Amino acid sequence: MTTLSDLNSADTAAFVDTLRGIYEHSPWIPERAAAQRPFASVTALKFALQTVVDQASMEEQLGLIRAHPELAGKAAIAGELTQESTQEQAKSGLNLCSAEEYAVLHKLNSDYNTKFGFPFILAVKGPDGKGLTRQGIIDTFSRRFRHHPQAEMAECLRQIHRIAELRLNDLLQVTHDFGPLVMEWADIIGAWSEADDGLTCSYMTQVHQRTAGQLAAWMREAGMEVQIDAVGNVCGRYEAADPAAKTLMTGSHYDTVRDAGKYDGRLGILLPIAIVRHLHTRGERLPFHLEAIGFAEEEGVRFRSTFLGSNAITGRFDMALLERADAIGITMREALKAAGHRVAAIADIARRPEDIAAFVEIHIEQGPVLLERGLAAGVVTAIAGSSRYLVELTGLAGHAGTTPMAMRQDAAAAAADIVLLVEQRCAQVPSLVGTVGQLEVPNGSVNVIPGHCRLSLDIRSGDDSVRLAAVRDILGGISAICARRHVDVVLEQIVSASAAPCAPWLMDQLGAAVSRRGLPRFDLASGAGHDAMAMAALTDIAMLFVRCGNGGISHHRLETISLDDAETAGHIMLDFLRSFVPS
Amino acid sequence: MTTLSDLNSADTAAFVDTLRGIYEHSPWIPERAAAQRPFASVTALKFALQTVVDQASMEEQLGLIRAHPELAGKAAIAGELTQESTQEQAKSGLNLCSAEEYAVLHKLNSDYNTKFGFPFILAVKGPDGKGLTRQGIIDTFSRRFRHHPQAEMAECLRQIHRIAELRLNDLLQVTHDFGPLVMEWADIIGAWSEADDGLTCSYMTQVHQRTAGQLAAWMREAGMEVQIDAVGNVCGRYEAADPAAKTLMTGSHYDTVRDAGKYDGRLGILLPIAIVRHLHTRGERLPFHLEAIGFAEEEGVRFRSTFLGSNAITGRFDMALLERADAIGITMREALKAAGHRVAAIADIARRPEDIAAFVEIHIEQGPVLLERGLAAGVVTAIAGSSRYLVELTGLAGHAGTTPMAMRQDAAAAAADIVLLVEQRCAQVPSLVGTVGQLEVPNGSVNVIPGHCRLSLDIRSGDDSVRLAAVRDILGGISAICARRHVDVVLEQIVSASAAPCAPWLMDQLGAAVSRRGLPRFDLASGAGHDAMAMAALTDIAMLFVRCGNGGISHHRLETISLDDAETAGHIMLDFLRSFVPS
Repeated sequence: MTTLSDLNSADTAAFVDTLRGIYEHSPWIPERAAAQRPFASVTALKFALQTVVDQASMEEQLGLIRAHPELAGKAAIAGELTQESTQEQAKSGLNLCSAEEYAVLHKLNSDYNTKFGFPFILAVKGPDGKGLTRQGIIDTFSRRFRHHPQAEMAECLRQIHRIAELRLNDLLQVTHDFGPLVMEWADIIGAWSEADDGLTCSYMTQVHQRTAGQLAAWMREAGMEVQIDAVGNVCGRYEAADPAAKTLMTGSHYDTVRDAGKYDGRLGILLPIAIVRHLHTRGERLPFHLEAIGFAEEEGVRFRSTFLGSNAITGRFDMALLERADAIGITMREALKAAGHRVAAIADIARRPEDIAAFVEIHIEQGPVLLERGLAAGVVTAIAGSSRYLVELTGLAGHAGTTPMAMRQDAAAAAADIVLLVEQRCAQVPSLVGTVGQLEVPNGSVNVIPGHCRLSLDIRSGDDSVRLAAVRDILGGISAICARRHVDVVLEQIVSASAAPCAPWLMDQLGAAVSRRGLPRFDLASGAGHDAMAMAALTDIAMLFVRCGNGGISHHRLETISLDDAETAGHIMLDFLRSFVPS
Repeated sequence: MTTLSDLNSADTAAFVDTLRGIYEHSPWIPERAAAQRPFASVTALKFALQTVVDQASMEEQLGLIRAHPELAGKAAIAGELTQESTQEQAKSGLNLCSAEEYAVLHKLNSDYNTKFGFPFILAVKGPDGKGLTRQGIIDTFSRRFRHHPQAEMAECLRQIHRIAELRLNDLLQVTHDFGPLVMEWADIIGAWSEADDGLTCSYMTQVHQRTAGQLAAWMREAGMEVQIDAVGNVCGRYEAADPAAKTLMTGSHYDTVRDAGKYDGRLGILLPIAIVRHLHTRGERLPFHLEAIGFAEEEGVRFRSTFLGSNAITGRFDMALLERADAIGITMREALKAAGHRVAAIADIARRPEDIAAFVEIHIEQGPVLLERGLAAGVVTAIAGSSRYLVELTGLAGHAGTTPMAMRQDAAAAAADIVLLVEQRCAQVPSLVGTVGQLEVPNGSVNVIPGHCRLSLDIRSGDDSVRLAAVRDILGGISAICARRHVDVVLEQIVSASAAPCAPWLMDQLGAAVSRRGLPRFDLASGAGHDAMAMAALTDIAMLFVRCGNGGISHHRLETISLDDAETAGHIMLDFLRSFVPS
């Protein structure tokens, strides 16, 4: 058995030789990484190898990709694969393909190679290491075939890093403390849905209550005191030895959007439960109470009101919302009563700020930044504030054939100017994003100059002054565009939310834990809203983001994380907790 | 009684004095026009006065506008209007306004003055000189209040020219040969509709057949031999003395779009009937047969096939279309049979090219060019060819808050680039127009980066090489935009139609008739398709365009022309016919 310590102490030749099979036919990778030893963790070793590849020339990267065999290709059939590839392909049942599946894969391989000039690479063991299904592989193949070459080459390299990671896990017989449990738990509750297809778990439905009950059960098994409060928050408490100690809070939401991913919100509940379980098993107490909360509602799907769970914890639950009805006319009050909750007890949920040390939320990034940088986790700087507007443009409809260009008052052309203005202005500051997500010429005809156009604006930044300056410039620009084009504009602001900055002292402690894991600390803003945003009304907040796969997609069934990233995030959080020093 | 000859021979002081009341409180207008005498026609006099105003300074123009009283304003109530204004306002019943109507007008006057800084000007006698209704005035007021100041000032000056025209008609006791009849006829058949509200007359409906019968009756009364052919064309023939003479053809379509204007197509049938009536009354024959056709179908509303009538005349009727069904399943064959037509006779409709001298179509412009230039009529250079495409853009949907600007594949941003590319490229050549009339992010959300966007392209020019060069550049530009943005594009061409150039020898004869009327010859391309386009397969073609009011709007109930423009167009056409020399 090889250990990390063996690798750290081996001479370069032995180091390279031991890692020969990790990156297919590419000994230059361990060769270049050898000098960076010793590695603090297997995670650090993986990152060093990955960094060698990322810094290699394009030719070397292409050579690495081309060193990999086709999936279920001729080499596999002829038994010419490396031992690793053979085992991996067999694990997905690729050696058991039907004639039809072989034909589909053969066609995909051929088309893919023609389009990109390199073979399709996929870590067939998948994000949890258990192996993708044959259908899953074919679907991924078809999806990635539509990528642009540059993006697809980057994806191939990421898949190669994942393959290397899995091979290193085998070589070093890496054991996981948190990842397998979290992936399994997310699969279990991710299979419970109020929809026939895909995951939907909205507030106070049967599925939602069942999920709460399961979270409570796992918390109890992990060694926590648990109660489900009057709005449905599942609150698990891992007591400190000293009853007078303050409480460090963590958690996230267990409700979902429609047709959601399995990790949005839930990762931030399940990982703390797994960590407490780990501590409890070892009989290890923390010098503070740790409270992990499964917030009942954050997404706003059923009653169009977000942060119900965390607002109740901070004492800011809006009781007027109880009268709000869902799509079929059931009020929130009725839904809570039917679930056995006493709305009279909601006020008692509020925590006292003086009891709380901080709130630290783990969440998937829901974006591509960590993925593109090859990082398992990052420290959040702030949750972006946002400004949203609906824009109505009214020009003058006219005959597309008979109205000279100079005489037009084209509402869609004004909209086009606005789309590009938003894009150009928001590209000027890294922490700023701006999106025109809705864009429509109502009842447009091919041969009619658009007299009307509707669009939406969504402008966000972790820094309110950056956001407000951009909004000012964009609104001014819209006025100028519309004046120049003789187009009338009506703006309606539908959202104006301030940013919630993370506390630097918490960020530093989280960042230190990242560094101790052998990974570079990387700070990024959260463009999406999170429970931490509401919790900022009660205490200092921080967030740890975990890398999303599949291009960073979220709010979608393709949302994914790897077991190893969950493991890494768990270790960073555990290390943070063990080292935590209150402000 | 004052005559044009009196004005032409008067000394300047008398000329100015006689015309003192024509332009409200503005003797400087006849003063500056006086030197241009003698005028060839009252039309030429009107045009000279109008040109003085159009060439005056902005201050003088504003002064002219401000010299006009408010509609039903204090001056009207106090009896302080000029004699002309008093009569005009009384003719519209503005002196009979209810208290409520006064209140509405007072508010509109006040708001309008605040917005624009000048009073609302409207020729209350309207396009046919009979007087607008009070409700019509209030509606126009409300509509024009939404204009942009520059456009509205130009509209006020146009209304002032119309007021002056009507006053000159009274002063010189101008008689009209064609205008009143054409306006009345258009009103009569414009009131017959298959819809409950607005004018709709689609192929072979009851209303369509009734309209054909009425056109045939008017043609017979005018002195023509008439037959309704097997596709429903109403063909009226005014015979030459010499039976062996060639035939000059004219005409346009009597079917309409849904909720149409009264003049699109029909003006080009009614004006020739009025001209023949004029000739016949005087016992005047032409040295060629004149055939005026009411084409049964051009708009394609019922069976989605255009130019049915003119294609039958050229022998290009597509018999396969007989099996095409309308929205409720009635085939064209069934509709024709029910109307008493014999489809077996369609082939016999085709004319022999050797019998035909030319085809000259009168049509409303359906655009703002003549209106903006202050011209009653223009000579068409070509009917534009067109290229139409549907464009599907596929980028990558993503979270609007979490995806940095540089990592986006935003389909709507690519669409915005395309909209502006079309606009910019088509503005480079005067005869070219390009329109993105449909634009949509399907199921767009405020907080999601558009993964898809659909748009349409419509590119037209009277010159095919200009159009095809633009199409080439635009399609190349779309490729470049999509490559740069990593957005996939799928293009579907839905129309590719060549331009139909007008015959220069016919244009010159039409242009000479325009000049003899005392108006400058002005040539313009037709962006819309017309029956002449189909007739070009049979013979040389030309078109005379007549100015549209209301900003040039067409295919809309606001479509309008003035009685005096119809009169002018009639005289130009009559003069053209009398002077016609075959090629």
